[in-house]
Amino acid sequence: MAAERLQTFLEKIRAELDQVVEFWLKHSHDRQHGGFFTCLGREGQVYDELKYVWLQGRQVWMYCRLYRTVERFRRPEILEAAVAGGEFLRSHAWAPPMDGRQKCAFCLTRDGRAVKVQRTIFSECFYVMAMDELARVTGKEEHQREAERVMDLIVHWVRVDPSGLGRPEMPGDAPVNQMAVPMMLLCLAEQLTAERVVLGEKYRELGQWCVQQILQHVQRDGAAILEMVSTEGKELPGCQGRHQNPGHALEAGWFLLQYAARHGDEGLKKTAVEKFVRLPFETGWDAAHGGLFYFQDVDGLCPTQLEWSMKLWWPHCEALIAFLMAYSVTGDPALLDSFTRVYDYTFSHFPDEKHGEWFGYLTQQGAVSLDFKGGPFKGFFHVPRCLYMCECLLDGLLGRPRAL
Amino acid sequence: MAAERLQTFLEKIRAELDQVVEFWLKHSHDRQHGGFFTCLGREGQVYDELKYVWLQGRQVWMYCRLYRTVERFRRPEILEAAVAGGEFLRSHAWAPPMDGRQKCAFCLTRDGRAVKVQRTIFSECFYVMAMDELARVTGKEEHQREAERVMDLIVHWVRVDPSGLGRPEMPGDAPVNQMAVPMMLLCLAEQLTAERVVLGEKYRELGQWCVQQILQHVQRDGAAILEMVSTEGKELPGCQGRHQNPGHALEAGWFLLQYAARHGDEGLKKTAVEKFVRLPFETGWDAAHGGLFYFQDVDGLCPTQLEWSMKLWWPHCEALIAFLMAYSVTGDPALLDSFTRVYDYTFSHFPDEKHGEWFGYLTQQGAVSLDFKGGPFKGFFHVPRCLYMCECLLDGLLGRPRAL
Repeated sequence: MAAERLQTFLEKIRAELDQVVEFWLKHSHDRQHGGFFTCLGREGQVYDELKYVWLQGRQVWMYCRLYRTVERFRRPEILEAAVAGGEFLRSHAWAPPMDGRQKCAFCLTRDGRAVKVQRTIFSECFYVMAMDELARVTGKEEHQREAERVMDLIVHWVRVDPSGLGRPEMPGDAPVNQMAVPMMLLCLAEQLTAERVVLGEKYRELGQWCVQQILQHVQRDGAAILEMVSTEGKELPGCQGRHQNPGHALEAGWFLLQYAARHGDEGLKKTAVEKFVRLPFETGWDAAHGGLFYFQDVDGLCPTQLEWSMKLWWPHCEALIAFLMAYSVTGDPALLDSFTRVYDYTFSHFPDEKHGEWFGYLTQQGAVSLDFKGGPFKGFFHVPRCLYMCECLLDGLLGRPRAL
Repeated sequence: MAAERLQTFLEKIRAELDQVVEFWLKHSHDRQHGGFFTCLGREGQVYDELKYVWLQGRQVWMYCRLYRTVERFRRPEILEAAVAGGEFLRSHAWAPPMDGRQKCAFCLTRDGRAVKVQRTIFSECFYVMAMDELARVTGKEEHQREAERVMDLIVHWVRVDPSGLGRPEMPGDAPVNQMAVPMMLLCLAEQLTAERVVLGEKYRELGQWCVQQILQHVQRDGAAILEMVSTEGKELPGCQGRHQNPGHALEAGWFLLQYAARHGDEGLKKTAVEKFVRLPFETGWDAAHGGLFYFQDVDGLCPTQLEWSMKLWWPHCEALIAFLMAYSVTGDPALLDSFTRVYDYTFSHFPDEKHGEWFGYLTQQGAVSLDFKGGPFKGFFHVPRCLYMCECLLDGLLGRPRAL
């Protein structure tokens, strides 16, 4: 009975992954300059040529991962596009040095000139993901060395000295523990250390630190995940302190679960499932209209972000992975029921039956509010990663285990 | 007949201004540290203590303007709060120098420590507005000298050398003419020069330059106002080039009209009414649900801003001023009809009958999406400025002319 349900999910998800890959293969490649167009309209047309570095790195990573681990995606055109994307990144992602500081740009012109630099770590993080996965596909050591070099730069910014980010220190701006930062570093540590003994040793303590930093976000006696806490792990005052992002908590959930499984940590496994998977779904699901809220205020006040009540594709992608992984790990049928609930909402709202790929941005009521398939923050990443991870997990549940 | 309509508008608008002023007098004053709380919930409760410098400056300006020009607001508590706000700004708005650069913070802690600095001119602009209007009320020359000092700094950033803003120059980031900049400078020039002969001379050329810069945003043979154009006044590629903000164009409309009236420029008056008032209303009004879209793409593509289809309070405030001023100047009854249309939508959607003040953020369909009365970008400014300007304009139309 469960097997039948799982088989139905698997077939749909496989087909969906195939069509999403085709969409990006067809529409996003810049054959003139390398790299990818990511501003793609409903039918795939390029409506802006800017190249966002996050999305360049993510697409290189995803292509390489699919090529490396999924038989049917071991296609030359996927590898070629990934390599061209990697070359584009290496040649263009780094902005001209500012006062001697090295930073990746946030976005580039079509031909690779830096437009804007953010004072955060994320462009560099997705650059590392791209380089490392590229190294695993091409076997080129230089890509791996580049990944490690930039990883160490990021860790230095986060744990030693943030001044290289270029954000001036301000007297009223106390440092905070923003959950995105240890999540991102944990993701990178997992990426760099998988099946590598020496790097596994090098980044072992970093992984433990990331987990501890993420766990500090469990607040209010375990009743809430808060996105920002003090560096001592205490709740912060004001909107910042009350800010919640249910999809992000769910993503942290499967990051922690994966780490716990790899390290055989039963306590962490339990915390991940109870606090980072079940809890944000319970509090973050819109009882009236279905779907996960984008942002919430833990005290039920109105968030100040204009988009707080919208339903975005990526929290639903993360929820699907989180529930299916949690079910795989625990076997608790309630988790499969929650997966089914998210699945039903997701597949009845986000995919575009007419032109392929998924819509990204719905109103609270579930109507399409922005109809493009790619934009400054939506690329070839959350949808295919979700479908790929779910396919692997479902294969595993159906007795055909695959490496993730 | 028209006079009766105008009298009805006037009565409603007067009453509305009174209740809005009372709301902020009651809830926003920080009697301990000076300055204003602006994060006020639906009932006026402070939900965050951060002090946004734009909104501090705007509230000082608005209080002073009301105190100085409207008999019934010449109340000691309004002056005292404005003076305390001005002192708070002078003592705390300036962030610690960064590499010797002077910049106002974007927001401050409750007790005035800088939290964040933006790399734009706007915090300083609202600081200038506050200082100048304060000088006009208190007669203190030091406030006026301070306004002039900072004005000259801003003009230097905009017209001579932007490096003091702290934004590193990037090879792919060509300078653009962003309409907000000449609009803001024109507004400040009007503020500083009104009834002042010497300053009128000093900033005369600046005013002319601002008008020319704003007029460059009339594009496509007069069929569209675009928010960003090249410094040569040409359309830019991509989303940036196609970006439209109807409420902002309408605000530019009444800025230009005011300038044209002061300088007796009939050609400019006509352009302001046709291109900056009528046109953005025609293209920016939502035929299906009423209200002005927040953002649009001139080619009808989907904007990438998540909030593009929302209905915000301030574009409607600006539209009310623009249409009433355009009607006052031209006498064209079609402009009064448009005013009525905006008025009907605005007064049936934004005011909160239960707890006073106005909601700021509605869905495309017109339902309240964020229910607070003040936030990081909504303070004591657009609503009272609109009601104050409309009251003055209506008094003028009804034969009791008042200085604006």
